[in-house]
Amino acid sequence: MGKNAVGGLDHVGIAVHDADAAIPYYRDVLGFDLVGDEIADAPGVRLVYFDAGNALIQLVQPVRDDAPVAMWLTAHPEGLHHVCFRSDDLRQCERQLNGGGESAIFRAGRGDDAFFLDAEPNNVKIEIVGPRAG
Amino acid sequence: MGKNAVGGLDHVGIAVHDADAAIPYYRDVLGFDLVGDEIADAPGVRLVYFDAGNALIQLVQPVRDDAPVAMWLTAHPEGLHHVCFRSDDLRQCERQLNGGGESAIFRAGRGDDAFFLDAEPNNVKIEIVGPRAG
Repeated sequence: MGKNAVGGLDHVGIAVHDADAAIPYYRDVLGFDLVGDEIADAPGVRLVYFDAGNALIQLVQPVRDDAPVAMWLTAHPEGLHHVCFRSDDLRQCERQLNGGGESAIFRAGRGDDAFFLDAEPNNVKIEIVGPRAG
Repeated sequence: MGKNAVGGLDHVGIAVHDADAAIPYYRDVLGFDLVGDEIADAPGVRLVYFDAGNALIQLVQPVRDDAPVAMWLTAHPEGLHHVCFRSDDLRQCERQLNGGGESAIFRAGRGDDAFFLDAEPNNVKIEIVGPRAG
Protein backbone atom coordinates (compact mmCIF):
# COMPACT_ATOMS: atom_id res chain seq x y z
CA MET A 1 0.00 0.00 0.00
CA GLY A 2 1.41 3.37 -0.97
CA LYS A 3 1.17 6.70 0.72
CA ASN A 4 -2.60 6.79 0.56
CA ALA A 5 -4.52 4.46 2.82
CA VAL A 6 -7.38 4.54 0.33
CA GLY A 7 -7.83 5.18 -3.37
CA GLY A 8 -10.41 7.23 -5.20
CA LEU A 9 -13.87 8.29 -4.17
CA ASP A 10 -16.27 5.48 -5.05
CA HIS A 11 -19.63 7.00 -4.13
CA VAL A 12 -21.57 9.45 -2.01
CA GLY A 13 -24.43 7.82 -0.08
CA ILE A 14 -27.77 9.58 0.42
CA ALA A 15 -30.20 8.07 2.92
CA VAL A 16 -33.81 8.12 1.75
CA HIS A 17 -37.09 6.65 2.94
CA ASP A 18 -38.34 5.89 -0.58
CA ALA A 19 -35.87 5.44 -3.43
CA ASP A 20 -38.67 5.33 -6.01
CA ALA A 21 -39.69 8.85 -4.99
CA ALA A 22 -36.08 10.05 -5.03
CA ILE A 23 -34.93 8.58 -8.36
CA PRO A 24 -36.53 11.08 -10.77
CA TYR A 25 -34.54 14.12 -9.63
CA TYR A 26 -31.17 12.44 -10.10
CA ARG A 27 -32.13 10.64 -13.31
CA ASP A 28 -34.41 13.12 -15.08
CA VAL A 29 -33.30 16.53 -13.78
CA LEU A 30 -29.56 16.03 -13.26
CA GLY A 31 -29.50 13.48 -16.07
CA PHE A 32 -27.43 10.73 -14.47
CA ASP A 33 -27.72 7.18 -15.75
CA LEU A 34 -29.25 4.78 -13.25
CA VAL A 35 -26.69 1.97 -13.24
CA GLY A 36 -27.75 -0.25 -10.36
CA ASP A 37 -30.74 -1.12 -8.17
CA GLU A 38 -30.33 -4.00 -5.75
CA ILE A 39 -30.95 -5.24 -2.23
CA ALA A 40 -27.93 -5.70 0.04
CA ASP A 41 -29.17 -8.17 2.65
CA ALA A 42 -26.44 -7.76 5.25
CA PRO A 43 -26.91 -4.02 5.84
CA GLY A 44 -30.64 -4.36 5.07
CA VAL A 45 -30.83 -1.73 2.36
CA ARG A 46 -31.93 -1.12 -1.19
CA LEU A 47 -29.08 0.54 -3.08
CA VAL A 48 -29.72 2.61 -6.20
CA TYR A 49 -26.67 3.84 -8.11
CA PHE A 50 -26.30 6.76 -10.51
CA ASP A 51 -23.20 7.28 -12.63
CA ALA A 52 -21.87 10.82 -12.19
CA GLY A 53 -18.98 10.10 -14.57
CA ASN A 54 -16.02 9.86 -12.22
CA ALA A 55 -17.95 8.57 -9.19
CA LEU A 56 -21.33 7.20 -8.19
CA ILE A 57 -24.27 8.67 -6.31
CA GLN A 58 -25.94 6.01 -4.16
CA LEU A 59 -29.44 6.16 -2.71
CA VAL A 60 -29.72 4.06 0.45
CA GLN A 61 -33.22 2.99 1.46
CA PRO A 62 -33.68 0.76 4.48
CA VAL A 63 -35.64 -2.44 3.87
CA ARG A 64 -35.68 -3.61 7.50
CA ASP A 65 -36.52 -1.70 10.67
CA ASP A 66 -33.28 -2.90 12.29
CA ALA A 67 -31.06 -1.76 9.42
CA PRO A 68 -28.50 0.77 10.67
CA VAL A 69 -29.72 3.30 8.12
CA ALA A 70 -33.32 2.79 9.29
CA MET A 71 -32.21 3.73 12.79
CA TRP A 72 -30.23 6.67 11.41
CA LEU A 73 -33.37 7.88 9.62
CA THR A 74 -35.34 7.86 12.86
CA ALA A 75 -32.86 10.42 14.24
CA HIS A 76 -32.11 12.44 11.09
CA PRO A 77 -34.02 13.71 8.10
CA GLU A 78 -33.15 12.23 4.70
CA GLY A 79 -29.85 13.52 3.41
CA LEU A 80 -26.14 12.97 2.89
CA HIS A 81 -25.26 9.85 4.88
CA HIS A 82 -21.71 8.74 4.05
CA VAL A 83 -18.81 9.05 1.65
CA CYS A 84 -17.11 5.93 0.32
CA PHE A 85 -13.56 5.43 -0.90
CA ARG A 86 -12.08 2.44 -2.70
CA SER A 87 -9.28 0.15 -1.62
CA ASP A 88 -7.58 -2.63 -3.56
CA ASP A 89 -6.89 -4.53 -0.34
CA LEU A 90 -9.85 -4.19 1.95
CA ARG A 91 -8.54 -6.43 4.74
CA GLN A 92 -5.20 -4.66 5.01
CA CYS A 93 -6.98 -1.33 4.82
CA GLU A 94 -9.32 -2.33 7.65
CA ARG A 95 -6.40 -3.42 9.84
CA GLN A 96 -4.57 -0.19 9.06
CA LEU A 97 -7.49 2.12 9.75
CA ASN A 98 -9.65 0.27 12.28
CA GLY A 99 -6.99 -1.77 14.07
CA GLY A 100 -6.71 -5.48 14.58
CA GLY A 101 -10.01 -6.38 16.22
CA GLU A 102 -12.90 -8.34 14.78
CA SER A 103 -13.51 -7.55 11.14
CA ALA A 104 -16.60 -5.51 10.32
CA ILE A 105 -16.46 -6.29 6.60
CA PHE A 106 -19.88 -6.95 5.06
CA ARG A 107 -21.26 -7.72 1.61
CA ALA A 108 -22.02 -4.37 0.01
CA GLY A 109 -23.52 -3.44 -3.36
CA ARG A 110 -22.13 -4.02 -6.87
CA GLY A 111 -20.33 -7.21 -5.84
CA ASP A 112 -17.99 -5.43 -3.44
CA ASP A 113 -17.19 -5.98 0.20
CA ALA A 114 -17.04 -2.97 2.51
CA PHE A 115 -16.57 -1.71 6.03
CA PHE A 116 -17.14 1.57 7.83
CA LEU A 117 -14.33 3.35 9.64
CA ASP A 118 -14.65 3.29 13.41
CA ALA A 119 -13.53 6.92 13.36
CA GLU A 120 -16.14 9.38 12.18
CA PRO A 121 -14.00 12.50 11.71
CA ASN A 122 -16.21 15.59 11.96
CA ASN A 123 -19.19 13.20 12.23
CA VAL A 124 -18.57 11.96 8.67
CA LYS A 125 -19.36 8.29 8.14
CA ILE A 126 -16.63 6.89 5.89
CA GLU A 127 -17.06 3.58 4.08
CA ILE A 128 -14.33 1.70 2.25
CA VAL A 129 -15.21 -0.74 -0.56
CA GLY A 130 -13.03 -3.26 -2.28
CA PRO A 131 -13.13 -6.53 -4.20
CA ARG A 132 -15.12 -9.31 -2.53
CA ALA A 133 -12.95 -12.06 -1.09
CA GLY A 134 -13.38 -15.70 -2.02
CA MET B 1 -25.58 20.67 -23.38
CA GLY B 2 -25.95 16.95 -23.75
CA LYS B 3 -28.13 14.52 -21.87
CA ASN B 4 -26.58 15.32 -18.54
CA ALA B 5 -27.33 18.68 -16.98
CA VAL B 6 -24.05 18.45 -15.10
CA GLY B 7 -20.72 16.69 -15.49
CA GLY B 8 -18.62 14.83 -13.00
CA LEU B 9 -18.49 15.05 -9.23
CA ASP B 10 -16.11 17.88 -8.31
CA HIS B 11 -16.04 17.64 -4.53
CA VAL B 12 -17.81 16.65 -1.33
CA GLY B 13 -18.05 19.50 1.18
CA ILE B 14 -17.68 18.89 4.92
CA ALA B 15 -18.65 21.72 7.27
CA VAL B 16 -16.24 22.15 10.20
CA HIS B 17 -15.70 24.70 12.95
CA ASP B 18 -11.91 24.46 12.81
CA ALA B 19 -10.18 23.26 9.65
CA ASP B 20 -6.80 23.13 11.39
CA ALA B 21 -8.18 20.56 13.82
CA ALA B 22 -9.80 18.58 11.00
CA ILE B 23 -6.90 18.47 8.53
CA PRO B 24 -4.74 15.76 10.16
CA TYR B 25 -7.26 12.92 9.74
CA TYR B 26 -7.70 13.45 6.01
CA ARG B 27 -4.02 14.19 5.36
CA ASP B 28 -2.19 11.89 7.77
CA VAL B 29 -4.60 8.98 8.33
CA LEU B 30 -6.35 8.70 4.97
CA GLY B 31 -3.23 10.01 3.22
CA PHE B 32 -4.78 12.55 0.86
CA ASP B 33 -2.65 15.39 -0.49
CA LEU B 34 -3.73 18.81 0.75
CA VAL B 35 -4.00 20.73 -2.51
CA GLY B 36 -5.64 24.01 -1.53
CA ASP B 37 -6.27 26.28 1.44
CA GLU B 38 -7.87 29.63 0.74
CA ILE B 39 -10.49 32.13 1.84
CA ALA B 40 -13.55 32.62 -0.37
CA ASP B 41 -14.80 36.07 0.61
CA ALA B 42 -18.25 35.94 -0.96
CA PRO B 43 -19.52 32.90 0.93
CA GLY B 44 -17.36 33.82 3.93
CA VAL B 45 -15.50 30.54 4.24
CA ARG B 46 -12.08 29.01 4.45
CA LEU B 47 -11.84 26.16 1.96
CA VAL B 48 -9.33 23.34 2.38
CA TYR B 49 -9.07 20.82 -0.45
CA PHE B 50 -7.77 17.26 -0.44
CA ASP B 51 -7.17 15.29 -3.62
CA ALA B 52 -8.92 11.92 -3.45
CA GLY B 53 -7.71 11.03 -6.95
CA ASN B 54 -10.85 11.35 -9.02
CA ALA B 55 -12.53 14.04 -6.89
CA LEU B 56 -11.81 16.47 -4.07
CA ILE B 57 -12.75 16.51 -0.41
CA GLN B 58 -13.40 20.07 0.76
CA LEU B 59 -13.42 21.28 4.35
CA VAL B 60 -15.63 24.36 4.76
CA GLN B 61 -14.94 26.53 7.80
CA PRO B 62 -16.93 29.73 8.27
CA VAL B 63 -14.86 32.89 8.73
CA ARG B 64 -17.80 35.23 9.38
CA ASP B 65 -20.79 34.81 11.69
CA ASP B 66 -23.15 35.68 8.83
CA ALA B 67 -21.71 33.10 6.43
CA PRO B 68 -24.41 30.63 5.38
CA VAL B 69 -22.29 27.74 6.63
CA ALA B 70 -21.87 29.48 10.00
CA MET B 71 -25.65 29.58 10.33
CA TRP B 72 -25.86 25.96 9.19
CA LEU B 73 -23.38 25.01 11.92
CA THR B 74 -25.54 26.64 14.59
CA ALA B 75 -28.33 24.20 13.64
CA HIS B 76 -26.29 21.09 12.80
CA PRO B 77 -23.20 19.35 14.11
CA GLU B 78 -20.14 19.29 11.87
CA GLY B 79 -20.55 16.87 9.00
CA LEU B 80 -21.33 16.28 5.35
CA HIS B 81 -22.68 19.58 4.03
CA HIS B 82 -22.98 19.43 0.22
CA VAL B 83 -22.02 17.61 -2.92
CA CYS B 84 -20.69 19.54 -5.90
CA PHE B 85 -20.81 18.70 -9.59
CA ARG B 86 -19.03 20.42 -12.47
CA SER B 87 -20.51 22.20 -15.47
CA ASP B 88 -18.72 23.61 -18.50
CA ASP B 89 -21.40 26.28 -18.89
CA LEU B 90 -22.42 27.50 -15.48
CA ARG B 91 -24.86 30.17 -16.65
CA GLN B 92 -26.79 27.87 -18.93
CA CYS B 93 -26.77 25.21 -16.23
CA GLU B 94 -28.18 27.70 -13.71
CA ARG B 95 -30.96 28.73 -16.08
CA GLN B 96 -31.75 25.10 -16.81
CA LEU B 97 -31.83 23.95 -13.20
CA ASN B 98 -32.82 27.04 -11.19
CA GLY B 99 -34.95 28.85 -13.77
CA GLY B 100 -34.59 32.32 -15.20
CA GLY B 101 -34.60 34.52 -12.10
CA GLU B 102 -31.75 36.50 -10.61
CA SER B 103 -28.44 34.66 -10.80
CA ALA B 104 -27.05 33.28 -7.56
CA ILE B 105 -23.59 32.66 -8.99
CA PHE B 106 -20.76 33.54 -6.62
CA ARG B 107 -16.97 33.38 -6.60
CA ALA B 108 -16.08 29.97 -5.19
CA GLY B 109 -12.73 28.33 -4.48
CA ARG B 110 -9.98 27.28 -6.90
CA GLY B 111 -10.78 30.09 -9.35
CA ASP B 112 -14.24 28.75 -10.14
CA ASP B 113 -17.68 30.32 -10.03
CA ALA B 114 -20.52 28.36 -8.47
CA PHE B 115 -24.16 28.32 -7.46
CA PHE B 116 -26.34 26.13 -5.29
CA LEU B 117 -29.45 24.48 -6.68
CA ASP B 118 -32.69 25.91 -5.36
CA ALA B 119 -33.96 22.34 -5.11
CA GLU B 120 -32.52 20.33 -2.25
CA PRO B 121 -33.67 16.83 -3.19
CA ASN B 122 -33.81 14.65 -0.08
CA ASN B 123 -32.35 17.64 1.82
CA VAL B 124 -29.10 17.37 -0.15
CA LYS B 125 -27.43 20.69 -0.88
CA ILE B 126 -26.10 20.50 -4.45
CA GLU B 127 -23.50 22.97 -5.71
CA ILE B 128 -22.43 23.37 -9.33
CA VAL B 129 -19.01 24.82 -10.16
CA GLY B 130 -17.67 25.98 -13.49
CA PRO B 131 -15.11 28.27 -15.06
CA ARG B 132 -15.17 31.87 -13.80
CA ALA B 133 -16.61 34.32 -16.29
CA GLY B 134 -14.72 37.43 -17.42
